[in-house]
Amino acid sequence: MNNLLYGDTIVAPATLPGTGAISIVRISGPDCFKLVDAVVQLKKGTISDAEAYTIHFGEIPGLDEVLVSVFRAPHSYTGEDSVEVSCHASRYIVEEFVRRLITAGCRMAQPGEFTRRAFMNGKMDLAQAEAVADVISSTTAAAHRVAYNQLRGGFSSKLASLRGELVEMTSLLELELDFSEEEVEFADRTRLLDLMDLTRSHVLRLADSFKYGNAVKNGVPVAIVGATNVGKSTLLNALVGEDRALVSDIAGTTRDTVEEVINLDGIPFRFIDTAGIRETDETVEQMGIERTFRKISEAEIVIGMLDVTAQDSTIKSNLELMVSKVDFDTQKLVLCLNKVDLGDKKDVNKNVSMINDFVTLLGKEIVILKLAAKRGLGVSELCSTLSRLESHLIPNSDTTFVTNTRHYEALCRTAESLSDARLALTSGTPSELVAEDLRLAISSLNQILGQDLIDPETVLHNIFRNHCIGK
Amino acid sequence: MNNLLYGDTIVAPATLPGTGAISIVRISGPDCFKLVDAVVQLKKGTISDAEAYTIHFGEIPGLDEVLVSVFRAPHSYTGEDSVEVSCHASRYIVEEFVRRLITAGCRMAQPGEFTRRAFMNGKMDLAQAEAVADVISSTTAAAHRVAYNQLRGGFSSKLASLRGELVEMTSLLELELDFSEEEVEFADRTRLLDLMDLTRSHVLRLADSFKYGNAVKNGVPVAIVGATNVGKSTLLNALVGEDRALVSDIAGTTRDTVEEVINLDGIPFRFIDTAGIRETDETVEQMGIERTFRKISEAEIVIGMLDVTAQDSTIKSNLELMVSKVDFDTQKLVLCLNKVDLGDKKDVNKNVSMINDFVTLLGKEIVILKLAAKRGLGVSELCSTLSRLESHLIPNSDTTFVTNTRHYEALCRTAESLSDARLALTSGTPSELVAEDLRLAISSLNQILGQDLIDPETVLHNIFRNHCIGK
Repeated sequence: MNNLLYGDTIVAPATLPGTGAISIVRISGPDCFKLVDAVVQLKKGTISDAEAYTIHFGEIPGLDEVLVSVFRAPHSYTGEDSVEVSCHASRYIVEEFVRRLITAGCRMAQPGEFTRRAFMNGKMDLAQAEAVADVISSTTAAAHRVAYNQLRGGFSSKLASLRGELVEMTSLLELELDFSEEEVEFADRTRLLDLMDLTRSHVLRLADSFKYGNAVKNGVPVAIVGATNVGKSTLLNALVGEDRALVSDIAGTTRDTVEEVINLDGIPFRFIDTAGIRETDETVEQMGIERTFRKISEAEIVIGMLDVTAQDSTIKSNLELMVSKVDFDTQKLVLCLNKVDLGDKKDVNKNVSMINDFVTLLGKEIVILKLAAKRGLGVSELCSTLSRLESHLIPNSDTTFVTNTRHYEALCRTAESLSDARLALTSGTPSELVAEDLRLAISSLNQILGQDLIDPETVLHNIFRNHCIGK
Repeated sequence: MNNLLYGDTIVAPATLPGTGAISIVRISGPDCFKLVDAVVQLKKGTISDAEAYTIHFGEIPGLDEVLVSVFRAPHSYTGEDSVEVSCHASRYIVEEFVRRLITAGCRMAQPGEFTRRAFMNGKMDLAQAEAVADVISSTTAAAHRVAYNQLRGGFSSKLASLRGELVEMTSLLELELDFSEEEVEFADRTRLLDLMDLTRSHVLRLADSFKYGNAVKNGVPVAIVGATNVGKSTLLNALVGEDRALVSDIAGTTRDTVEEVINLDGIPFRFIDTAGIRETDETVEQMGIERTFRKISEAEIVIGMLDVTAQDSTIKSNLELMVSKVDFDTQKLVLCLNKVDLGDKKDVNKNVSMINDFVTLLGKEIVILKLAAKRGLGVSELCSTLSRLESHLIPNSDTTFVTNTRHYEALCRTAESLSDARLALTSGTPSELVAEDLRLAISSLNQILGQDLIDPETVLHNIFRNHCIGK
């Protein structure tokens, strides 16, 4: 809680002015009470004399009537003396107020600087500080839960327990070094190996969760594949409609339309646009088709759309093409038989049977759904299917997913050092070298929490520059 | 301060989530402490037991860590028990929090409902309540000052003093009525007439200020007129650039681009797009030119652009056309001699002299500026000229401009009733009828402040529906 870590006092709007009813301007740093007193006239007394956690009515002369909230170090977000001023959400007022504070002696905050100060002042570790931006940008229940767990220290405490095991192993080995003359082995080698393997498997499991964490944060990639005119855009619009219905029942909150990311039962699905595949394999169109195939390979779920009013041979060749491009070990295929409400009923039924038979013969796990996308029929069944297929992504409150490339890479390095340590131990390398590998493993974990950073300035800069101003 | 005026408790986000660092959710109404306690767990104690003007750390379980600010009736914005909860600026968190509060028993607030409650609970009069939305939407110093003066009651107190005079006159006349049998005249007729005339002139001056108030609020209309290719768009872009430079020195605040409204020295200028006028009067293009001429008539300032590299006859005919379309009694003409950096220097100088001579001969007040719009030369001089021409729009802190059509119309009705009263008085109409006219005048003023409304529900609905949610 070193309040002298930063000598200057920073200011920034914490809300975007012009977009709501009230705006908040944040000030933090050693001189913040004095500087706010210079710009805001309280109705009674001064901010400098105010008690922590109290609210005061005042005026920025000629500009606005405001409420001033007072936080005293170390019991504030940043750990420093801090003030939050609530004014009318006018761009003019906020700009003029910030300008006056800067004239008085404040400095405009860098993006994420309040959170960076919170980290530097020991109010949170680096993984928690990184979670702040994730919490703010979360738009689904799943993404929020993962980020909030990390913010509350769930991820950090998991790392702390792994770290604890590694520290214990290391100290046992180091104890041996003190008695190295006597060739004593304090650390039972077999137990040590078991412990290493167990810890490494925990580290790897955490690293593996990055796959889920990434899907939760950026959306499960879904490719909608099918021939031209099979109804791909119609389906996508219908899916978007399902999402909108879920969020629009709370008025007063508009949402940025993130193109083609749809929230179903709290899980984000990111739809990958693909060009219509062709039933023929004419070389002239080959390149476009190749691109579609590449996109299919990026997907976690492939929605294969078939037009059941088409010729049975066309359907069959499309179906064969789709099946050949899906990797059933890592991908899931959902077949949507579209236009079941159109065409000749007998032909349609025959085609549906043909498809069912084909899938049964194939012996793969494929979901088959009937659809009339234009009329919105079958769409909610598709939504349920998608969210069911990814239900493992809805984390419990104590599930930890790694969502951050920096963390993933540090965990991989930890696992690598543990492999090295194991190899050293089994090949009879001296204990001090084994201990060194373990220390490297510990250091990699520490880096996630913001300790042992190789180039701290660069790492912190890269992390906080993506935060918003005022956070 | 009737806290029982509204039985229900309302909630709304007061900031737009997803666009900043923190979001504020507002709750107001008789059950607000109880309902917030049901959804937010404080670290210590409960909101219901908290003192006014204090801040409390708590958690919305599994959702977010929050700060809760407590306001107790009548000392709050609405005059009711109120709470402001500060959470992370995540759309998901705000939506989920509001949803939980609604489940607990809150109602989603209507647009402007917090301010409407403040008005109903006597925290502000209607003119002040209307100023809230103006304060928020003000983007220039002038617009802000007018709105803020109205919010602080400057306009209301001016109305109160006018009203006071009218009430005094009325009571004198009413006193006569009590003694009507005795034909006493308490009110000196000549003094009464003088007083009526004086009050009416004050009312009219206030009504007249609507012209300025409207310009301050919506921008001074400026038409840039000139032949095709004279450089009109180049100039507009350069002007927009001047404005941007003024506001972009404060980071962290993005501004909605309001098409073609430019802030110069605190005054908004609204540029009216016009098609290029023609040096010839060929009938085939007549319609487009007519539209341009209509647009010129809407302007307060006309910027007439001339290309000094053109033929002198062309320049002269354009100049004559412009001058003929400007009403020098109500409009100001600024001639911009563009492209002074191009063409033959001697020809250019000759053309400039010719224009100067023409203007001198005309004997009208016309500002002449030399411009090289493409290189940005002369643009800042033009900006200074524009703001100098409209410097009367920068109000003192005690200047009152009427900015609202509703107020303007009520003032006109007041003046009309005063005219009626005067006519009645001078034509010997019985005192009770004169008094009736004065009471009508008072009633019109009262309506501005929110009293004597003919159809209060409709008036209030129309006013507050344009406020934002959460205000």
